[in-house]
Amino acid sequence: MGLFTKDIATFDDLFLHQLQDVYYAENQITKALPKMIDKATDPALKGGFETHLRETEGQIRRLDEIFGLLGQEPKGVTCPAIDGIIKEANEVAGDIADKRVLDAALIASAQAVEHYEITRYGTLIAWARQLGQTRAAEILQETLEEERSTDEKLTAMAETRVNVQAELAPA
Amino acid sequence: MGLFTKDIATFDDLFLHQLQDVYYAENQITKALPKMIDKATDPALKGGFETHLRETEGQIRRLDEIFGLLGQEPKGVTCPAIDGIIKEANEVAGDIADKRVLDAALIASAQAVEHYEITRYGTLIAWARQLGQTRAAEILQETLEEERSTDEKLTAMAETRVNVQAELAPA
Repeated sequence: MGLFTKDIATFDDLFLHQLQDVYYAENQITKALPKMIDKATDPALKGGFETHLRETEGQIRRLDEIFGLLGQEPKGVTCPAIDGIIKEANEVAGDIADKRVLDAALIASAQAVEHYEITRYGTLIAWARQLGQTRAAEILQETLEEERSTDEKLTAMAETRVNVQAELAPA
Repeated sequence: MGLFTKDIATFDDLFLHQLQDVYYAENQITKALPKMIDKATDPALKGGFETHLRETEGQIRRLDEIFGLLGQEPKGVTCPAIDGIIKEANEVAGDIADKRVLDAALIASAQAVEHYEITRYGTLIAWARQLGQTRAAEILQETLEEERSTDEKLTAMAETRVNVQAELAPA
């Protein structure tokens, strides 16, 4: 983004910028997830992160498709929000010794990532519809539904097992 | 957080850490909102941000109360996630000349903040319940409902008016 000019002139420009932001975010998430898979102990949580890594790769391919619909090359712009969310996840994980408490923290971190994606895809869908980009909106909706489903699965894992285990960590 | 010791030993420690994280986040939001009020043009959006600033002040008082229930002094820990979300909001806003496009971007930024709070309060409520902190969970639930309601109001403003206006910005 330029220091002396305002690079976002139109609503189309804003939509493209947000698409580039989420493209960067999804790519950062594919780098962060293998570390979360390594750190997770609960087998279902580990498996959930593995599934979500494959889903994220598919979500990037969907974004590639949308860039194509707009006649644009796929490109990311640095997204301080996802960088901050991932940095915080790493800091908290680095501060926890007990594996059960760590699993609870990993779920919370993953849900912060999911909610970032939920809000961005929600916005992108509303903007795509307003701009008459009906096909783009449909593709983005598929990803939004995956993100919501992942978030719900993480809540269920936390409440039925992982938080119960975390409470057993000795002082 | 210590470099050589793991500061989060128990699930209680993790709960307290997350409470301190969201305390810092709410305080940063009270500093960010006046700038968003200044930048907003749509009167209902400006008014919505003003209402949310007052709500946020009330949410901080609720957190003070929960620290008291835990026998702890209210304290924040730096939260790279909210710092990143606010940094991104400022960067995008600084890159937009047209006031109508700016309003659409401000709503998206505010919803990213709301979703960060929704995920963190959701986690805190689940953890408080697991830890038998029933009163804390009830207080946190009040805030979660306010955040969800703010998010829904922002969606309604965007879809009924602000996005429609943003599309009218000339290239």
